[in-house]
Amino acid sequence: MAELITIDRPDDPRLYDYTDLTDVELRRRREPAEGLFIAEGEKVIRRALQAGYPMRSMLLSAKWLDTMRDVIDASPAPVYVIDPELAARVTGYHVHRGALASMARKPLPEAGRLLAGARRVAVMESVNDHTNIGAIFRSAAALGMDAVLLSPDCADPLYRRSVKVSMGAVFAVPYARLTDWPRDLNAVREAGFQLLALTPGAEAVAMDEAAPHRLPKVALMLGAEGDGLSARALRAADTRVRIPMALGVDSLNVGAAAAVAFYAVATGRPES
Amino acid sequence: MAELITIDRPDDPRLYDYTDLTDVELRRRREPAEGLFIAEGEKVIRRALQAGYPMRSMLLSAKWLDTMRDVIDASPAPVYVIDPELAARVTGYHVHRGALASMARKPLPEAGRLLAGARRVAVMESVNDHTNIGAIFRSAAALGMDAVLLSPDCADPLYRRSVKVSMGAVFAVPYARLTDWPRDLNAVREAGFQLLALTPGAEAVAMDEAAPHRLPKVALMLGAEGDGLSARALRAADTRVRIPMALGVDSLNVGAAAAVAFYAVATGRPES
Repeated sequence: MAELITIDRPDDPRLYDYTDLTDVELRRRREPAEGLFIAEGEKVIRRALQAGYPMRSMLLSAKWLDTMRDVIDASPAPVYVIDPELAARVTGYHVHRGALASMARKPLPEAGRLLAGARRVAVMESVNDHTNIGAIFRSAAALGMDAVLLSPDCADPLYRRSVKVSMGAVFAVPYARLTDWPRDLNAVREAGFQLLALTPGAEAVAMDEAAPHRLPKVALMLGAEGDGLSARALRAADTRVRIPMALGVDSLNVGAAAAVAFYAVATGRPES
Repeated sequence: MAELITIDRPDDPRLYDYTDLTDVELRRRREPAEGLFIAEGEKVIRRALQAGYPMRSMLLSAKWLDTMRDVIDASPAPVYVIDPELAARVTGYHVHRGALASMARKPLPEAGRLLAGARRVAVMESVNDHTNIGAIFRSAAALGMDAVLLSPDCADPLYRRSVKVSMGAVFAVPYARLTDWPRDLNAVREAGFQLLALTPGAEAVAMDEAAPHRLPKVALMLGAEGDGLSARALRAADTRVRIPMALGVDSLNVGAAAAVAFYAVATGRPES
């Protein structure tokens, strides 16, 4: 059972995991380096624990003690009880979800291990917006993607905003980070996957003609909002596929495009 | 050609259209009542003009005068030139897109008129989040939906945030507001549309089995994030359809669900 510790000074060093949460640049460096991430709100904290992430500590206002009682009882991590005003001074914002937890990261799996058991994989290049990363993981979980592979410059799926937008799906869909981009895509192909690059380019095959749901193993490549996939990523793909667009419309939002493509890859069935 | 007027006082009454833009509650009442909406940024302002909305005035910092020169020359509306600091005091935020326009609303078309020329229509119930409304319009435009019908309590597609998130698609996709909900859905059916209600409920037909792309006229009903469609809206539908979900996942984000459903309705083709 956890120890309950009331804290009354914002500079208490035990709160160090929770300082300056609104400083995105600082936190995106600090959190991976220190091996932690922040789970916000009851639901997300519970999902992180269910996914096997060890808890380092929890930060609660007093009125959340009852709601989180079972979590507190089941964990050895210290629980810091803190006035909401004080919490705002430490974190930089008003924590209206009332509960924060600092969770320990786990080592990421090797890409090869994820590919071994997978049939549908999303591959993201340079998606560096935390909201988009979270939204894409949420859709990937809902639409049955087995795993996600990230290019080296993708944003951190465990950043607070990504976790929140994903509704905890970043814990449910296993992911790995590729280190040599785009060369590591060769290993994906060698594992039996057909590499489909999603692009609005007119030269691409329409998604319904490509009929990716008929392929035994699909790796669906997605680029960032705006720029899309790089030229070298497009060259590394087997096939370019596009979502048919109405005339005169630039593009879908990357989250919407990902959802449509996941649906086409995972759900489309021969009888349709 | 517009008159250029340099303004140096935040309480200048000519700036009234632009006051307190960050007060969502105030603005969501004021803007429809006063027959205006705010377009933000060069691209959105140009799209609003192309769509035929008359300009009431424009608010620019001096460095945007060159970029907007052709717009200024083509419009009789006054252009207020204002220091960025002063603009922030009037509007309540730092206008980093540099240009705002106050545009006059146009009367909304009758639903019946929209239905007459349409084959694929999105019907939203109680979608009262401006970001979601904007995202859904963007996907509707990209995926070829012909029109949008809104229940009486849906948020305003012309609210600044909706316009921005939609990338101006709220100007491109015609929409109407139903007044008697859900009874007005009868008129949609009488216009020859099959009413499909999107729901995660297990009793619903899977989207690929429903094969909505084969139907001549489809009205796709969407509810709000979280609650989904109301029981009475579900009862008013002809068929309930669901996007097949992976086990244990609650739901897709409403924007992602809309994109998938629009794709299935508009793009799915018999040969797939």
